[in-house]
Amino acid sequence: MSKKYVLAGDVGGTNLRIAVVDSEGAMVHEESVLTPQTRVASDVVTAISLVALSCVANSGISGRPLAFGLAMATLVNSREGKSLSSPNLPELNGLSVADAISEQLGLKVLLENDATAAAIGEYWLGSSRDVNNSVFVTLGTGVGGGLILDGRVYRGTDGTAGEIGHINVEREGHLCGCGSRGCVEQYASATAISRIAQELALQDTTSSLAGKRNASSKEVYDAAKAGDPVGLETFRIMGMYLGIALAGLVDVLNPELIVIGGGAAGAWDLFIDSVQDEIASRAFGPPAKTARLVRASLGNSAGILGAARVALDAEIAHIA
Amino acid sequence: MSKKYVLAGDVGGTNLRIAVVDSEGAMVHEESVLTPQTRVASDVVTAISLVALSCVANSGISGRPLAFGLAMATLVNSREGKSLSSPNLPELNGLSVADAISEQLGLKVLLENDATAAAIGEYWLGSSRDVNNSVFVTLGTGVGGGLILDGRVYRGTDGTAGEIGHINVEREGHLCGCGSRGCVEQYASATAISRIAQELALQDTTSSLAGKRNASSKEVYDAAKAGDPVGLETFRIMGMYLGIALAGLVDVLNPELIVIGGGAAGAWDLFIDSVQDEIASRAFGPPAKTARLVRASLGNSAGILGAARVALDAEIAHIA
Repeated sequence: MSKKYVLAGDVGGTNLRIAVVDSEGAMVHEESVLTPQTRVASDVVTAISLVALSCVANSGISGRPLAFGLAMATLVNSREGKSLSSPNLPELNGLSVADAISEQLGLKVLLENDATAAAIGEYWLGSSRDVNNSVFVTLGTGVGGGLILDGRVYRGTDGTAGEIGHINVEREGHLCGCGSRGCVEQYASATAISRIAQELALQDTTSSLAGKRNASSKEVYDAAKAGDPVGLETFRIMGMYLGIALAGLVDVLNPELIVIGGGAAGAWDLFIDSVQDEIASRAFGPPAKTARLVRASLGNSAGILGAARVALDAEIAHIA
Repeated sequence: MSKKYVLAGDVGGTNLRIAVVDSEGAMVHEESVLTPQTRVASDVVTAISLVALSCVANSGISGRPLAFGLAMATLVNSREGKSLSSPNLPELNGLSVADAISEQLGLKVLLENDATAAAIGEYWLGSSRDVNNSVFVTLGTGVGGGLILDGRVYRGTDGTAGEIGHINVEREGHLCGCGSRGCVEQYASATAISRIAQELALQDTTSSLAGKRNASSKEVYDAAKAGDPVGLETFRIMGMYLGIALAGLVDVLNPELIVIGGGAAGAWDLFIDSVQDEIASRAFGPPAKTARLVRASLGNSAGILGAARVALDAEIAHIA
């Protein structure tokens, strides 16, 4: 039997990454470009299609890929293949992205929220492999999530489930891009790390971060690693808020595993004790004891691999 | 084919209710006693067994029930049939209640958290019938919950899932029986309604509740119905906090339906606008539009009927 291949993509506000992936999860060929910043929907759709075609041509595979799975940094109605809303790609709001790309490529296209795709990727090939109930959390520019429940990806009624970044952790807290206030995204994302450090540095002139305006989360991390009190306190606060949100999920979902990925997960040692303390003191004992916190293992390939898996599954379902 | 019967029970801190239920969900015979207050585990177990035997004897059914489903007001490990913890029935903590009763009756016994059982009952015969994704919330002495996801009850890794009453809504809020602070149970239960009204009445001497110490949630309800400002404000606050917790669940689970039951749900008209406002302003638009809020329809029989369904399903699985 010849190998099966799918196209898989991960489209964010900054980068657009597409790969040909085989049925074992190996990336055969990969191409990446900057996401068009014209704020015109058809530019994004055309860029995706062109990179996809180039990727297939340069991959050296014989025959066509079976389908195209596409992870997007937007709220996605995965049943309808529609992008619903996003601060990063607002030009796609309401657009049937799957249909638009499918028309250009003549391939079945499956749309998935990027964090849900990453949850699927980690479940297929990464940290949550063979685990029936897991929560995936990604700490990047925002905070995203995906749920594997009873051994299957859980998408909810419209396919928008898993938006754990908007669990409230501070009733009248910082205004969030989603329109609410005090979402965990405002306290545990890379963006939040910069803001919290900046707020704290105003009150502590001895900090190495005190002079800096808009220190990046990387700079806050470096400062914390060097023992800077503002840096350390920032990650303690970040972990505390993340812990409050996760404690609720522990009680509600009783997961076996909480997988934490995304760029800010790199600061693991600096925030994880704080997360664990909060879960231990807030969630019920038995589910808190059950839920292990682990780092994601696929790095920034989790989303594209999850998208590949979605494409493979759709094609298998289609054949069956 | 002769009719199938199961035993079903609902054991709370105050009442112990057992029924013989047929496979269509009709309660053939029902008996109820006060839960023993001796704080001795074997007294509770024996009381359950005796009422169950009496119930079968008086039901007039021929033959034995297939199994015994038991809903309990405790944190339950449903896989092991164990009661894990409970403020109401602490004497059962850690006990394999299912095994203990099974030994006395010679029947298979299935343990289920009472709110999860009620979710199953409403899904079988009530408000969420034929709905694939629903969240059940019960507003009683505490706040409980149960989840129906992708058309099946979701129990999580140990069977403790669905504890939505302990979602945080006020970071450093009121101390909760679970050990955390600011759980929604402390703001949206019948107990919370009394407390909030009492706090507000201290600042408003014109209220009819101002003189009263420990006004019951029923008295607060009556006052609100008569236009009392403290009563009305109490239910607005209660609805707001419930809305914060539910907005998070709307984003995380994208349910089609949120079913609200329990005694305090009787005040529906007084709090539901406040719940809806909070969901509309906090959750993402598309899932917020999808999630309908409805009242539970089985009243205080939801739990016992859900327990019956669990017993029926276990027996069907056993036969198959």
